Parts: sequence; C-alpha cells; structure tokens
Amino acid sequence: MQAFVMKQVGETGIEEKEQPDAGPMDAILKPTKGLVCTSDCHTVHGAIGEREDLTLGHEVVGTVEEVGSEVSDFEPGDRVVVGAITPDWNSEAAQDGHSSQSNGALGGWKFANVKDGTFQEYVHVNDADGNLAHIPEGVTDHEAVYTTDMMSTGFRAAENGSIPMGGTVAVFAQGPVGLMATKGARLQGAGEVIAVETVETRQELAREYGADHVVDFADGDAVEQIMDLTDGEGVDTAIEALGSDQTLQDCIKVAKPGGTVSNVGYHGGDEFRHIPREEWGVGMAEIDIVTDLCPGGRLRMRRMLQMLESGRVDPTKMTTHEFDFEDIETAFDMMDEKEDDIIKPLIHFE
Amino acid sequence: MQAFVMKQVGETGIEEKEQPDAGPMDAILKPTKGLVCTSDCHTVHGAIGEREDLTLGHEVVGTVEEVGSEVSDFEPGDRVVVGAITPDWNSEAAQDGHSSQSNGALGGWKFANVKDGTFQEYVHVNDADGNLAHIPEGVTDHEAVYTTDMMSTGFRAAENGSIPMGGTVAVFAQGPVGLMATKGARLQGAGEVIAVETVETRQELAREYGADHVVDFADGDAVEQIMDLTDGEGVDTAIEALGSDQTLQDCIKVAKPGGTVSNVGYHGGDEFRHIPREEWGVGMAEIDIVTDLCPGGRLRMRRMLQMLESGRVDPTKMTTHEFDFEDIETAFDMMDEKEDDIIKPLIHFE
Amino acid sequence: MQAFVMKQVGETGIEEKEQPDAGPMDAILKPTKGLVCTSDCHTVHGAIGEREDLTLGHEVVGTVEEVGSEVSDFEPGDRVVVGAITPDWNSEAAQDGHSSQSNGALGGWKFANVKDGTFQEYVHVNDADGNLAHIPEGVTDHEAVYTTDMMSTGFRAAENGSIPMGGTVAVFAQGPVGLMATKGARLQGAGEVIAVETVETRQELAREYGADHVVDFADGDAVEQIMDLTDGEGVDTAIEALGSDQTLQDCIKVAKPGGTVSNVGYHGGDEFRHIPREEWGVGMAEIDIVTDLCPGGRLRMRRMLQMLESGRVDPTKMTTHEFDFEDIETAFDMMDEKEDDIIKPLIHFE
Amino acid sequence: MQAFVMKQVGETGIEEKEQPDAGPMDAILKPTKGLVCTSDCHTVHGAIGEREDLTLGHEVVGTVEEVGSEVSDFEPGDRVVVGAITPDWNSEAAQDGHSSQSNGALGGWKFANVKDGTFQEYVHVNDADGNLAHIPEGVTDHEAVYTTDMMSTGFRAAENGSIPMGGTVAVFAQGPVGLMATKGARLQGAGEVIAVETVETRQELAREYGADHVVDFADGDAVEQIMDLTDGEGVDTAIEALGSDQTLQDCIKVAKPGGTVSNVGYHGGDEFRHIPREEWGVGMAEIDIVTDLCPGGRLRMRRMLQMLESGRVDPTKMTTHEFDFEDIETAFDMMDEKEDDIIKPLIHFE
Repeated sequence: MQAFVMKQVGETGIEEKEQPDAGPMDAILKPTKGLVCTSDCHTVHGAIGEREDLTLGHEVVGTVEEVGSEVSDFEPGDRVVVGAITPDWNSEAAQDGHSSQSNGALGGWKFANVKDGTFQEYVHVNDADGNLAHIPEGVTDHEAVYTTDMMSTGFRAAENGSIPMGGTVAVFAQGPVGLMATKGARLQGAGEVIAVETVETRQELAREYGADHVVDFADGDAVEQIMDLTDGEGVDTAIEALGSDQTLQDCIKVAKPGGTVSNVGYHGGDEFRHIPREEWGVGMAEIDIVTDLCPGGRLRMRRMLQMLESGRVDPTKMTTHEFDFEDIETAFDMMDEKEDDIIKPLIHFE
Repeated sequence: MQAFVMKQVGETGIEEKEQPDAGPMDAILKPTKGLVCTSDCHTVHGAIGEREDLTLGHEVVGTVEEVGSEVSDFEPGDRVVVGAITPDWNSEAAQDGHSSQSNGALGGWKFANVKDGTFQEYVHVNDADGNLAHIPEGVTDHEAVYTTDMMSTGFRAAENGSIPMGGTVAVFAQGPVGLMATKGARLQGAGEVIAVETVETRQELAREYGADHVVDFADGDAVEQIMDLTDGEGVDTAIEALGSDQTLQDCIKVAKPGGTVSNVGYHGGDEFRHIPREEWGVGMAEIDIVTDLCPGGRLRMRRMLQMLESGRVDPTKMTTHEFDFEDIETAFDMMDEKEDDIIKPLIHFE
Repeated sequence: MQAFVMKQVGETGIEEKEQPDAGPMDAILKPTKGLVCTSDCHTVHGAIGEREDLTLGHEVVGTVEEVGSEVSDFEPGDRVVVGAITPDWNSEAAQDGHSSQSNGALGGWKFANVKDGTFQEYVHVNDADGNLAHIPEGVTDHEAVYTTDMMSTGFRAAENGSIPMGGTVAVFAQGPVGLMATKGARLQGAGEVIAVETVETRQELAREYGADHVVDFADGDAVEQIMDLTDGEGVDTAIEALGSDQTLQDCIKVAKPGGTVSNVGYHGGDEFRHIPREEWGVGMAEIDIVTDLCPGGRLRMRRMLQMLESGRVDPTKMTTHEFDFEDIETAFDMMDEKEDDIIKPLIHFE
Repeated sequence: MQAFVMKQVGETGIEEKEQPDAGPMDAILKPTKGLVCTSDCHTVHGAIGEREDLTLGHEVVGTVEEVGSEVSDFEPGDRVVVGAITPDWNSEAAQDGHSSQSNGALGGWKFANVKDGTFQEYVHVNDADGNLAHIPEGVTDHEAVYTTDMMSTGFRAAENGSIPMGGTVAVFAQGPVGLMATKGARLQGAGEVIAVETVETRQELAREYGADHVVDFADGDAVEQIMDLTDGEGVDTAIEALGSDQTLQDCIKVAKPGGTVSNVGYHGGDEFRHIPREEWGVGMAEIDIVTDLCPGGRLRMRRMLQMLESGRVDPTKMTTHEFDFEDIETAFDMMDEKEDDIIKPLIHFE
C-alpha cells in the first residue's frame, strides 16, 4: 500500500509499505478523508527527534476494513472516526483520568510518533472498542474528521480553563486549534471572548466562531490592548493555542488574580519557557497554569460528533484547500509554509 | 410610600409604608422595572409560613437613591441591578462558597422573606458594594431585570450539572427558570438538550432557547420518551426546574450511571421527596443529586449583565404581559393562576 | 476445583467446578487469603435476583497461575491483589471517569454477580494489566486483602464527601466499610469525626480508627446528638455506610447548608428512599447527595497498598475471626447473623 | 503605644505610634502572642518596595479591645485569632472564591503591607465578624498563633495539590511552611511523602510531621533522588515551599504526567521563573502549576483551630526560640540570618 512518510528529518515522500495486521483488540481502518496538521510539519523538522520512514498524519476518518477477535462493537464496513490520540485505556494514567498520558508523557499519541500515522491506505488502530466511534448518518466525513484533533483539542483548551458563566476569555492565536478554542469558549459560557490574531482571514473566522473582539498585535502590544478592553482587570481565562514563549508570557500577564492560563500549544525550541514573576503575582496570585493534550477515545469522539449532528459548530469553514491523496506532499508543503492563507487542507483518499 | 404586600397568608394588597433607611454599608434603591415570580405566589399561599404586611417581590432594577457612609462604589443616580439573593458576604457560609446560605439555610434570600421585598417605591439593599451591579449602557432595564433571578437561577442549574462538552441534558419544565436552564445547558456545551413541557407557547420558547427536542408528557411517559431519544442510555444531566416529587423522580430515572441530577426547583408540600431506589442504582450508580439556590452578588450580576451586553441571550422573549405598578395585583393574580399562557409579567414603576 | 457457591436464593454449599480459562487479556489467580463480605449475604438472600450455582466472594489476594497472550505486566507466580470491582477500562463509562459503572449501572462489579466470584481454587480476572496489582514485599496477604473492598470503598466515601480541611464529618454505622470511612475522613483532613454506632466493639474500633466522638443511637436520636455536638450547625459531610432509609434521612438532617451527603451504603428493600424535604432545604440548601461504588483497578489497588506499606492504617484490627477455606460456610453463616460480634472473617485458602 | 517598625528599606526599630481606631465593621486587638515570619525579613529588605515607619508582623493572637458599631459576634475581652490575610469579603475576588486576592493581586494581605502590622500594642482588624475567630478553651495562645499563617499556608499547599488518596508527594524545603505542607500532605491522604531539606533539625521535624523519606540535596541532585525513590515515575504532587527558581524547576521535573505542582513559595528576585520545557511535556503533559496565597477569614481560622483542638497537629514543635516584645528586634535579626537553627521565634506581648 502507499504511505506518505517522513523518510528522515527534513525529508518526506510517498513510499510503498506492507499493510498492517490487527491484534485481537485492534482494527484496520481504510481512510476516506484526512487533514494535515501543523504538528506533522514540526515532526518532519525534527521536533520529536529522528524517525525513519514513519508514516505521517493523525487526523482521519474512514471505514473499518478488519477487526481483531476480541473487538465487539465494530465490524468491517462501519463508518468511523478515530481520535488523533489513541490511549491504552487500562494504563495507570488512563485510570487516573489522564488517558492522553497513558504509559508515559504524551503516551496516548501514537500515530506518526511511535507508530505509522494515518496517511496510508490502511491504518492500524489499537483498542478498537475504546478508540473508534461510529459516525452518525447526518454527519459528513468532512465534518467528522475535524473531531479527531482540532475540535477535541480546541474545545479542551476552553473546558480546562475554568471559564465562569459570563466570564472573559482571551485566546492567543487563531490557527485551527485557536479557532476551535474560541468556539469552545463560547460553548463554555464565556461572556466576552477576545481573539488575538494578525492574519485577516483568521480574524474573520474568529469572529464567525464567536470572538467579540479581535486584537491584532500588529496594532500594538496585545497585553495592553486586552487590559484596555477589560478596564485593566484582565481576563478570567487566557488560552495559549500557539506554543510560543511570548504568548505564554502574555497569557500570564493578562490573567487576573485567581484566573487560569490554559495551554494547549505545543512548545518546541528553547530549553525554557518563562513565567514573568511579577505578573504571576510572585507565585501567590492564584493564577494557575494548566495544560492538556488532545483527548481521544470513543466517548470523546462521540460527544464531538454529537456537536456536529446538532449543528453546534461548522468546522469545515476552516478547510481552505483540498487535495487528492496523491497530491498530499503539496498539501504538506503549503501547510509547512502557511502559503495562500492556508488554514486546513482536506485530503481525499478516494 | 406605596408597597404591594402580603397582608397575611392568602391576602394581598397595596399599602402605605415608611421609606426604609440605609445603614453604613447599605443603599436605598428606587425601582424602575420589576418582574413577578411564581415564588411570590407560593409565599402568599403560605409556603414559608405566616407573614404580616410583608412587601412582596425580589426581581427589580432601578436607580440608587441613597447610600450609607461606608459604601464606596455606588452613588445616588447610578443605574443598578440587585440580585434576588443578597448574601452577607462575610458570613461563614459565604466564606465556604455557599453565599446563598449565609447565616442559615437559604439565608441569602432576604427580599420578601425576612424583610420587605422589592415591590415598593424605595427598596433597602444590604451591603451595597457587595450586592449591587452597574447596568452597562447597552443593556435595557427590561433585559437587566432578568439577571436577578431567572438567568442567575436557570443558568446555575446548568453550571451545577457537570455537563460534559457534547453531553446530553434533559430539562424538566419550561417555566422561566426551566427556559433559562435550557439556554444555560447550551451555554455549558451540551450536545443534545431535551426539554420537557406540555404548554405549547413554552415548547416554542424552549426551541428558541436551544432545545433540540421537546418531550410532551401529554404524549406519554416522559422517562420513556427520553430513554428512547437517548437509545436507552439516559442523559448525562437531568435538571429539575419545577419542584415536584414526580419530576425529581423522573430526573433520577433518566440520569445515566455516573450522571447528575441538578435541582433548582423549590420543593413545597409533602414531608418527603422520593428517590426511586433501583433507578438510583441502589445507592451505588454514582448518580449525584445536587441542589442550588439562585446565586446573587455583584460579580454574579455583572457576569449575567455581560451575557446581555454580548447578546448571548434575549430573556425579554419571556415577557408575555406588562403592567404599571398600580396594577400589580392583577399581574400577581394572573401569575398565580397562570392565566393567558403567562410566563413573566413585567412591572413598570414609572 | 472446589467452589463455595450460592446454589439458589437462600442456599449455599461447596461444589466441584471446572477451572476457568484465561482469554488473551486475562489472568487466572490462585487465592491465598479472602474475606467474607456482608454483600455476599445479601446476594444469597436474593438482593440481586436469582442465581444458580454462582461462586460467592469478591475480596481476595493470591498468586498468578496463568496469564493470557496479551498480558504484559504480570506472570505466573506473582503475588497480587485484584479489586472487588474489575472494570472494563475501555468502556465509555470508564472513559467518563466512572469505571465502576462500565457497561451499565454497577457493571464493574463482576465477581459473584455476573460471573463466578473469588471463593474457589482458581479465579478468573478480566484485563489482568488493568485490574491486578503487585503486593509490595512489606505488606502481608492479610493486610492486602483489605484493599480490595473495605479500604477502597470506605476511603472513597470520605474522598467523595468534599471534606474541608478541619471540617466536621459524621459517619453513620461502623461496620467494616464505616470504620474505613472513619479512618478515611481522618486521612482527608477532617477536624472532627463523629461515628454513629451502638455495638461496643465497633465503637472501640471507631475510636482507634480516629473518631473523636461516638454517638450511640441507643442513647437517643442520633440527629439530635450530632446537632448538639456541632452547636446546632450540623456537619460538613455526612457519610452513609449502612444502606438504610433511616440513616440516609439522618445524613440529610445533619448536613449543614452547603454540606455533602456521601453514600456508599448498598440500599436494598423498598421501592423508595426518602429525602426529608424541609431539612433538605426545600431543594435549595445546596446539600448534595453523592454516591459511589467501590473503585477498582490497578492504580487504585496500588495506592491502597501504598497506604499499608507506609503504615497509614492497620485494617487487620477488623479481623475478628479466621477460618480455613473448608469451613467457609461457617464463616458465611456467622457473617450473615453477625454472631459473636463478628466484623470480618478471614479465609485461609492454603 | 509601642510598635516594631520598618523605618525604611533595611532599617528596623521600635517606635511610638498612635493607637488605631475601629470603623463600624472593625475591631481593635490587643496581642498576647506573635510569631516572626521570614516574609517580614523580605519586606525589610525591600521585596515589596519602600515603606516608611510601617509596623511589621502578621501572625498574632490576642484579646479584643474594642469593636465597631456594626460588629455582632465579638466583644471586648474575647480571646481571638486573626488571620495573616484579612480579605474584603464583599469584593468581587472574594465572591469569585479568591478572597486572598480581594481588590487586587494579594489584596487580602494588608498587615505590614498596606497598613500597620501586628507587632504593636493595639492592632486594627478590618471586618471583625469576617476575619476574627474565637479560640476554643482547650487551645493555647501559643498553639493558636500558628493557625494565622504557617498552618493555613502550609496546609493549603497540600489542599491545592490534588493529592490522590495513597498518592506520592514531594515537599521542597522544610521551613515552617514546608513542614506544615508535609503535615498537610499526610492530612490529605498522601501514601508517600518525600521531604527535601538539608538542615538536620528541620529534617528531624519533617519526619515528625510525617515525611516517609527525607532527601538531602547535599547528597546529590534532589530530582534524581526523588525519581529513584519513585522508581522513575515521579510524584503526583510537588510542593514548592521556598520561592526559588531552582526548586520550582525541580518541582516540574519530578511531577509525573498528569501531576500537579503546588506553589506557595513567595518568589522574589529576578524577572522570570523558568519552566523546563521538556520535563513540562512541551506544554502537553497535563502537569499543572497552581499557586495560592495563605487563606484567611473566620471560617478558615475556625477550621485550623479545630485541628488543634482535636490534636491533629502540634505546631509548637517549630518554636525554637522565645522573646519578650521588647526584644523583638533580636528575634527579627536571628530570623533574618537563620541563626542558631532558628525555625520560629515566639513573641510574648505581656
């Protein structure tokens, strides 16, 4: 079968691979639609270290091709979504409420990290009963593929932020995760949502997804603008959806005493992130810094699909480009360079 | 000044009263708009015992007439809202996070309970800095008066219900509190909201406020209908917004194992409420029954007002009738009898 | 192999059974020590309906005899404990934080409910990696067997009760679960623990496990005594560890506004449990009624074992009687009748 | 009256001051016992900026001398404790559950910060009903004075740390706050408590207060030692009780994925604190960093006093030295230099 792989750091291409087998608890999935994620680009640039001929991709929906002997709730032909994160549900971390950390930090993240990802003709899914979810009839594959990561991660940024009903929220960066965090803040009862972004098309989408204000850091310091908008009070919740030292610092600076900084950004690069000591209230202002990795699993996916079925959100507005699987390298390169105001490129497998 | 009072159990009327004085922390408020609440009717029927010439009403907005010597953030002429519940913020219950229970069960409920209510020309407000909130310019008095109880209580029913993002919620009864609970469920991320109601105008409003399904118990057992809608699973959260034994039981019956029953209904009448033992999982199915009294206070009011300012909800759709203060007794009687599909009657003081 | 079974409602005996087989994820355990639980008695009396030749028992430790092909962390000869509750960790309920409710209400409870229990020579354990835990060297089998249910359930009653540091707790009934709830309240920071019990030996143990006061309902109404002890305030947390309507009502009556009733009692019998409406604050006093079923799983067991290893508690004080496996019927009958002030009878399998 | 003041940065001395007056909600307290806190030393060294003739001290108990007209629960002669933090209970931050942040970051901290502290013959207490607590008969002044800050802060470090029952906790630094955090971890159900400290007398006290292990960083890297003790897993909760960049980093390094870093250390000095990016799981390992300022208020004090009344802890073991008020400068200087293995010096006012 064909697979879009990272040959080594800095090099990608399509290769021929052997079709995977399903263990007793597993399933083999045949993808129909997929999305390219910026973290695939980070991986190729070496963010998680060297990999050899590793298939990329972790956002996909498709049909079940084969199931293992112990799988009870899925069968070949079922139309399903699989989360980007596929936890080991009996691990101690999962038992502790941290399934994405199963068997080690970020251990639930298997696709395109510790095993081949989803950009191949047949995809291995561990623990099918725990990690697949049926797609309801009224939901398209295009919509459903957004549940795997963008909705699950972006919404979690909001869920994790202890947003009070009627509270104020600032969301730093309006890439696809940030946009879903903006929407998520609305779905968690925020009374005022401030989106920080400089790209115009993303600003527009931020407004469509529910931002009451857009702060453009090209117009001046984002922190100052947010403090002005909140009459100097700061926000109840600041969401970091980019992964940069600067925005994390800004989050801490705009959080009011007793507020929450909710990080979902992937932080690459330098040895340290910096906490501005004074704005952090010298460690006593009850500004908590919380973090999360995209939640996966059947229940999470089902709940995200329910949001689509009920029309709570239309994530397909973020699909700016579409490609056939054979052209995936072009999609990947555009995503890497953020060309042509790309937000998310959809991949058609058939 | 004139006051609309409960003369004794079963008897109401307009009486002349002395204008109240403000202590050092207090304020005197001159009402502009008010709403009649069904709980005023319960009070007149004796629900909280005998009262003599007690002014009724607890939902009101107005302008500050006078403030005490220690009040720092309000002054005569300010346009303000006061919550239906006006806690003693330095009480132990408030320090414990239960401000509505300050100085005894339901102790934050003072208006038309332990002191004169808001249906009089001048209203005494304890702890003005803690219990008043300025009404933003873009918010009308008519809108603002809904924050005092209907929004604060109905939204809290949802906030207290541990609704998962994308989860299912059933809201029993679509009176004004139930309608705001339906809206609240949407604002807390519910993926599927099932409203239970039989009155057609209320069913329509329920849909406007975000119900995905309306279950009419005139069409058959509500529990069965809800179990059908959820493929036999039950709901994550069941909200009791009526105060009857039957609906509380129904809530327990439709909650899934691990689900939550969130009660905001005022339960009058018999000695007991009944927990159906088996559906409660013989006390081990992790179905929690949680309760709340309308939260009050400046911060709560400010956050509710923010929801209006940002256009998150239009509560004025619930205003079915309007009356001048001199006709308040008619409003009260209609509310008592639920005549003419009344939902909320607005009172104009000027 | 030999098994102590419930032949039908009302009848027990030792029978010969076929040795169980392990599926790919499972293990076979050879018990060394076990404990008889009052819920086994309830089962024989028909509490969960008719059963035929079902092996009883759910509290056991032993050595691993055999493991399935997919089990990675355990091997034959390992000294292990298995929780009374053995969840399906990839079920939606477990993913939702309610593992004991996996695949239906109380669905994690498999032993002596939906499959043979632990009072037989070889015991089948589903999901060995998820449900077994190694016993540390310094912990005896006798100590370890208490983690399976008594410690896990009793401690959870306290954990679930939102006990404030320095708060007041009442624990109704000092059977083995109640005694561990008393100890659990101390381990959760209670400042004042009031144990309710009338049997003298249990009163003594309650004091040893940390009760500051013992209320004997033979001396008068327990509610009145507790209200006196708390200067009329009531308690922050009331724990129901018996499963009777009366004690549940008493818990609600002694809980202060804003307090929590934490139920772990198994409620058999009548159709309803009764909530005293007025003491419940007419549904608005923020008295929550929460419930739980014994948590199981490897992590829970490991943490309970850690408490033994560190000497936090000595549960063996509750062992009032000891029997060889061949005399288990005597143990069972004494437990059923609560003869000779029995608290827990220990069963030696070898 | 006499007052021990900070004349300016770097200079202290005893001065004559006017006796304070009580406003309508306030009280005047005549101290009996006090404790010197290291943060007084930081203040004198300029940590919170310049001050002129500001009375130092915030840990004190005494008798009520005078109360304002609106105070209802206290009267002259009452034996009371006042928390180091005296919130404005009707402020928005307090209404939001962050009373220590009332009216701005750290705004509940008034003594020796924004008004005269407690090292003077008469002390002004704002909101007497909200901020004083009666000392029970069985509790000595010496014991009670520890509730004001050391117990309230140290215990909160543990309460804020989401310690699972049976979980592992590391407490960095065993000064008086760290020692109470060690005790607090035990009182919150920790199964294994690891104290980090190099001073021998503090190591001994750590063991007395419940540390299972003591890690001496003079013996090698603390992080490595803790990882060894936990078989490479790390801890559920890491408590920072010192306020240094290094220990905060170490806390993050020893926290397991899904674990919590609970900071109560006051962080002075440089512009930044540093988060080690990789050990923080690149912002996705669900390691939360939470912070708190000592909780104050009548309820908190009452609950701390309850812990003393019930004999849960003996904080007086930390009193290594005693001084009369006239010798307070010596006490202060010894505390500043940590001479003679001083932990806490007790001040006798009479």
